[in-house]
Amino acid sequence: MSEANEISVASKLSDATAANSVYAATDPCAIGGLSVAVGQMDVIAGNPQANLATMRAMVAQAKEAGADLIVFPEMCVGGYFLADKWTDESFVDYLESLNDQVRAMSDSIGIIFGNVVRSYRGTAPKGTDGRRARYNAALFAQDGQWVPRQHDDAVAGVYLKSLLPNYRMFDDDRYFVSSLEDAQYHTELAFEDAYCSPFLFMVRGTTYRIGLEICEDLWSGDYAFDVTGHYQRQGCDLVVNISASPWTLGKDNGRAKRVAEHVAALGSIPPLLYVNNVGMQNNGKNVLSFDGGSALYGSDGRILHQCPDTFTESCEVVNWVEGASSTSAASCYENDSEKILDALVHTLRRFDQQIFPFKPKWIIGLSGGIDSSITACLLRLALSDPSRIIGYNLATRYNSDITKANAYNLAQALGITLKNGSIEAVVGATEDVLRTYGYADEQISGLAQENIQARLRGHMLSTFAGVEGGVIMNNGNKIEVALGYATLYGDAIGAISPLGDLTKVQLFDLARAINRRLGTEAVPENLIPEETDEGFSWETMPSAELKDAQVDPMKWFYHDWLIRKLQDYPGYGIEKIMRQYLKDKLASTPVAKWIPFYGLDDPEAFINDLEWVLRQLRISVFKRIQMPPIITISRGSFGFDFRENQAIYEQTPEYCELKEAILQRG
Amino acid sequence: MSEANEISVASKLSDATAANSVYAATDPCAIGGLSVAVGQMDVIAGNPQANLATMRAMVAQAKEAGADLIVFPEMCVGGYFLADKWTDESFVDYLESLNDQVRAMSDSIGIIFGNVVRSYRGTAPKGTDGRRARYNAALFAQDGQWVPRQHDDAVAGVYLKSLLPNYRMFDDDRYFVSSLEDAQYHTELAFEDAYCSPFLFMVRGTTYRIGLEICEDLWSGDYAFDVTGHYQRQGCDLVVNISASPWTLGKDNGRAKRVAEHVAALGSIPPLLYVNNVGMQNNGKNVLSFDGGSALYGSDGRILHQCPDTFTESCEVVNWVEGASSTSAASCYENDSEKILDALVHTLRRFDQQIFPFKPKWIIGLSGGIDSSITACLLRLALSDPSRIIGYNLATRYNSDITKANAYNLAQALGITLKNGSIEAVVGATEDVLRTYGYADEQISGLAQENIQARLRGHMLSTFAGVEGGVIMNNGNKIEVALGYATLYGDAIGAISPLGDLTKVQLFDLARAINRRLGTEAVPENLIPEETDEGFSWETMPSAELKDAQVDPMKWFYHDWLIRKLQDYPGYGIEKIMRQYLKDKLASTPVAKWIPFYGLDDPEAFINDLEWVLRQLRISVFKRIQMPPIITISRGSFGFDFRENQAIYEQTPEYCELKEAILQRG
Repeated sequence: MSEANEISVASKLSDATAANSVYAATDPCAIGGLSVAVGQMDVIAGNPQANLATMRAMVAQAKEAGADLIVFPEMCVGGYFLADKWTDESFVDYLESLNDQVRAMSDSIGIIFGNVVRSYRGTAPKGTDGRRARYNAALFAQDGQWVPRQHDDAVAGVYLKSLLPNYRMFDDDRYFVSSLEDAQYHTELAFEDAYCSPFLFMVRGTTYRIGLEICEDLWSGDYAFDVTGHYQRQGCDLVVNISASPWTLGKDNGRAKRVAEHVAALGSIPPLLYVNNVGMQNNGKNVLSFDGGSALYGSDGRILHQCPDTFTESCEVVNWVEGASSTSAASCYENDSEKILDALVHTLRRFDQQIFPFKPKWIIGLSGGIDSSITACLLRLALSDPSRIIGYNLATRYNSDITKANAYNLAQALGITLKNGSIEAVVGATEDVLRTYGYADEQISGLAQENIQARLRGHMLSTFAGVEGGVIMNNGNKIEVALGYATLYGDAIGAISPLGDLTKVQLFDLARAINRRLGTEAVPENLIPEETDEGFSWETMPSAELKDAQVDPMKWFYHDWLIRKLQDYPGYGIEKIMRQYLKDKLASTPVAKWIPFYGLDDPEAFINDLEWVLRQLRISVFKRIQMPPIITISRGSFGFDFRENQAIYEQTPEYCELKEAILQRG
Repeated sequence: MSEANEISVASKLSDATAANSVYAATDPCAIGGLSVAVGQMDVIAGNPQANLATMRAMVAQAKEAGADLIVFPEMCVGGYFLADKWTDESFVDYLESLNDQVRAMSDSIGIIFGNVVRSYRGTAPKGTDGRRARYNAALFAQDGQWVPRQHDDAVAGVYLKSLLPNYRMFDDDRYFVSSLEDAQYHTELAFEDAYCSPFLFMVRGTTYRIGLEICEDLWSGDYAFDVTGHYQRQGCDLVVNISASPWTLGKDNGRAKRVAEHVAALGSIPPLLYVNNVGMQNNGKNVLSFDGGSALYGSDGRILHQCPDTFTESCEVVNWVEGASSTSAASCYENDSEKILDALVHTLRRFDQQIFPFKPKWIIGLSGGIDSSITACLLRLALSDPSRIIGYNLATRYNSDITKANAYNLAQALGITLKNGSIEAVVGATEDVLRTYGYADEQISGLAQENIQARLRGHMLSTFAGVEGGVIMNNGNKIEVALGYATLYGDAIGAISPLGDLTKVQLFDLARAINRRLGTEAVPENLIPEETDEGFSWETMPSAELKDAQVDPMKWFYHDWLIRKLQDYPGYGIEKIMRQYLKDKLASTPVAKWIPFYGLDDPEAFINDLEWVLRQLRISVFKRIQMPPIITISRGSFGFDFRENQAIYEQTPEYCELKEAILQRG
C-alpha cells in the first residue's frame, strides 16, 4: 500500500507532472479571462536549489497550460521555519540573491513568489537584533522585469509583509521587519501608497490591479491595519495571499472565518487567491505539516476553486466559475482522523527523507499496545521499504501474552521484522550494580524499580540503534506527555514523536482510520474501547506493564478532554472549568458522561483529580524540555508551540475561591 | 565557605536588612536633593506574594532612610520570563490586580515599579495572539495615587514599554503590546505626548519631571524611536530605566556603550537611573542570571553611583556626587571568571531553592575529570548542606588511577560523599541481552560499545536518583554540546547544565577562580594545561575514558575560539573566518598560535577540520533539542537563546568559492 502513497523527493517533480497536470480554466470570467496557475509546491527548508528546481518545473507546466501568471507560496525559495539560521548573514544574502534567478524565469509569464529581501529603498534599516533588516516579501516579476505599482512611491516588484505573527510557533518579529516598522523610517511617505500599492499586471493589453499580501495579513482582526480591506477600498481586481501556513486542527475553518469576516465588514471582497505550500518544516521541538489547500475565494467569500489539502504538491490553473461551491471551507477529507493520518504519514516521510537522507533503519519498541502499534503502522505507510523498520519486543516478567501476540500479529500484518527477547538480564545486573554501591535490596522497589525497566528499554533500543545504525521512534501520546507518564531516558526517547500531540481518544479514531487505510486489522481491535451509554468496555486496558496488574492511572476520555481544553483553547483556563463544574454546566459538554463514570460528581474527588492533573502538568515540564520533537496537529502542542518554563506558579485567588466553593458543595 | 555565601529564600529579607542597609545620600545636589532608593530585589518568577513581601520590606527601609522615591525593576511583581504562562488569562489578571496593592504602599513615598497592565485608556485592544492586550508597564505611585503626567493625553501612573526586544532569549512581541503598537489604535493622539509624557513628581513643593523607560527602551539604536532622546529634548530632570536584564558576558560594557552613544548624539542626557533585579529566571531551555548592577549615570554618561553587580539584593539610596567615578561601566569584579563563578553559584542555588523546594539529593557522576570536578565545587558553593551532594565514580576497565584518585581527593576536599563501584556488570548484561536478540559479538564494538558505557552511566545515575529521591547534575561543557561529543541519554542527562555555556578554556580560568575561592586545590591542577609559547603542556588530557588511551578529539583553544566566534558574535559567520584564513589575518586573532600548533597552516587540514566542526554542529542539533536546561553566561548559548532547527542547509556559493580558494593554496 505504501508504494502508491510514497513520493520520493527525487521523483516528486515527475510525479507532480503525471498526477496533477495543469488543466485550463473551464470558464474564464470574473477578472477578464486571466489564467492563473497555483504552484502548491513542496518547500524544503534550507534547500533553495531543490525549491528553485520545483519552481522551474511548475513554471514550465504553467506556460504549457497557457497560464498568464503562476503564484508560489510564502518563503518558497529557502523555507519559512529556519529558526536562527535567519541570523546567518551569508545564508540570507544567498537566499536574497536568488530572487533575480526567479525573475529570469518569468519570460512570457507573471510569477508571484515569496522570499527574503534585504535591500529595499536603498536604505538599510537594521532589524532590532542589530543585524541588517530582513523583510518577509512577496515578489512579482513578469517578462524578466519587476512588476510596477500603481503609486510612484511604491517599490516595483516587492511587497513587504505587514502583519507579523508572534504566537504559537511563529516568531516573525524575531526575524523580519514589517512594512509598518519600515514605514517608521520613512515618515515622509504615505504608508498605504508606499507599501500597499496594487501591482499593475498587464496581459494582452489589459491591466489587472493585483494586491499582494502574505499569510497573517489576512488574519488582521487583531491588528490595527487591514491589508485586505485596503485592497478592497482600492478596487483591486484580485488579492493574492501567499502563505506558509502549517496545518493544525481547525485551521481550515479559521481561515474561512477570516474571509467571511472580511466579507461581512466590507460587503464584498475582491476575488482572493490563497496559495499555500506543502511539506515538512520544523522549529526544533515541533515538526510541522503543510497541507496545501490553496483556494480561490469569490467576492462573497465562497470557494470557487479548491486545490488538494492532502499534503501533496499540485500545479493547477484556477477555475473562476462563480457559485461553483456553496462552502467557504472545502476539504478533501470527510473527518479529522483521515486528515490527521495523512498529516502524520506525509510528515514522517519527509522528516525521514530530509533529516535522515542516509536511509537508516527505524528502531521501534513494539509492546503490543495501541500507541506503538499505531506508530509502526505510520512508519510502514511513510516508508517505501519495510526492511527499514525493525520492531523489538522488550519483555519482562510483567508482559502479558495478549500484548506479545499483538506485537507478533502487527509485525506480520505490516511485513516488518520483529525481534523478541528479554531485558531481564540487564534489569538484574542493575540491581547487582546497585548493591555494589551499597544499596540494599529493599531500597530497590516501587517507582524506582519500574523506571529501571522503562529506562533499560530505552537503553536497549538505543543500543540496537547503535548496532543497526538506526534511529529510534518515540511512541508516547499527548496525555502521557502532558502528565509526565513516561520515564525520562526510557520511553521518552527517540528521534521524533508522531503521537505526542494526539490524545488517547484521538488515537482510537486514528487506529480505525489506519485499519481502513490498510484494509486489515493492523491495530488490534482489542486495544480500542467500545463506548457505551454509561462509559466504555475495553478488552485490553492501557498498561505500561511494569508491574503486575498495572493499569494506567489516567481517566480516559475525561482527562483527554481536560488536557485538550487546557492546551488547545486560549482562555479556557482551569478557573473556567471549575466555574462550569460549580454551575453544573459540564453536563452540556462532551464530557458529561465521564463525570459520574469516574465518580467526579463527588466534589472532593473532582478537586483531588484536578489538582493531581495540574501538579503532573507542572512537574513534568522538565521532562518535556528533554523530549524529542513532536509532530504538531493540535492548536496547542507541547514543545516550541506552547512554550513552558519551570516555575512554581502561585494559584490565583480566584482558583482558591472556586476550590473552596466546590468543596463546600460536598 | 558556603555558609557565608548562602542566602535562603526564607531569610533573604532579613539578610538584606543586615548586610545592605540603606545609607543616606552624602551630597544631594544635581536634581535638588531628591533622595532616591534603588530596590535591587531578587525577583522570583511566578511568586508575586514573595515579591510583594520583598517590596514591602524595601519600601519600609527606604522610608526609614528618608528616601523620597524607591525604584524597583521591570516586572518585579510576577517575574519577566514566564514563557507562555503569559497566556494564562486568570494569572495575568491576578498579577495586574496587585498594582493597587503596591500603590497602597506609597504613603509618604514615591514608588516606581514594573508589572503587567491590561486595562489602559478604557479600550481593550487585542494582542496579536487574539487575547486581551498585555502591556509591559512601569508604574509610578505616590501617597496612594498614580503620579500625574505633564500632558493631558497621557495616562497617570503608567508608562508602556515602547521598544520590545525579540532576539536571543527575548520574546516581548509574543507577549506584550508596545506603546507604539497601542498608538496605532489612537491615531487621534500625538504619540510622544500621549505615551512618553514626563511624570510630575512633587516633593516638598518642588516638581521633578521624571521620564520613565523600560530596559530595551535604552537600547534604541536599532529602533525608529528613541525614548531617552525624547526625554532629553523634553528637559526631564531624571530618566529612570527599570530593567529585567539577564547578565551575559559583555552586557555591562554594552550598556555603557548605549549610554555613551546617547551622550554623543545628544550632547548630554538627563541623569539616568538604571535599576535591575537579581535572581534566577528561566525559559525552559536556558537558566538566566540577573546580576543587579543598578547604576546612576550622570549627564556625561559616567557612573555616579554603582550598586553591587554581585547577583545579590541591595537597597541603597543613590549618591548624586558628580565626578564620583571616571568610568562608564563599573563592576565589583576584576575579571570575567570571578563574575562567571558568582553567576553560576547564585543561579544554581536559586534554581535548587525555587524548582526543588523539597531539598532533594544532588546526584553527580564524579569521573575525576575537570568538568565534573568543577560542577561538584559549584554545587558545594551553592548548597549550604554538603550532605545533599552524592558523588558517584562509575568506573569501567578503561578508567585511569589518576582520575579515580582525583575524584577521591575532590570529595575529601569538599566534604561530600563519594560512592565507588563498577558498572561492568550492567555493561556485560547489555551484551548478553544483545545476543538474545540475535546480534553477534563482533557487531558490538567501536562507537556502539562506547555509547553503551556512557548510557549505562546515565542509567545508573538515574537509578541512584530514583533510589535517593534525587536530581542529577549534568557535567557537559559548551564545546561538547556544540560538537555533540556526548551520548544522548548517557552523559547528556540531568536537571541542569551549569557548564553548557562555557568553553573548555573558560573552564580552566573558572577552575582557578574556584580554587582561589575555596582556598584549596579542589580542582586538581593536573587537569589544567599550562600554556607555553608554542602551545600547552597538560598532565592529564581530557578523555571520556570509554576505550584504551582515548583522548578527546577536540583541538583545544582553537575549537574553543572557533565555536565562540560562531555562536557568540552575530555576523561572525564561517565565511568571515575563511576569508581571514585566506588573507593570513587569523595571525592577528587570539588563535594565531594554535593554527601551526594543530597543523592547520596546511590548507587541506584547515578545511577538513572546519568541515568536521560544521558537520558536528549540524548533526548534533537533535541532541541539543533533548538536553537539559543550560545556565546562560555567553552572548549565544544553546537552547532557547540561540534557537536551532533540524535541516541540512545548503552551503552558500561564497562558502564553496572560499573553500576552493583555500585548497588551491595548498
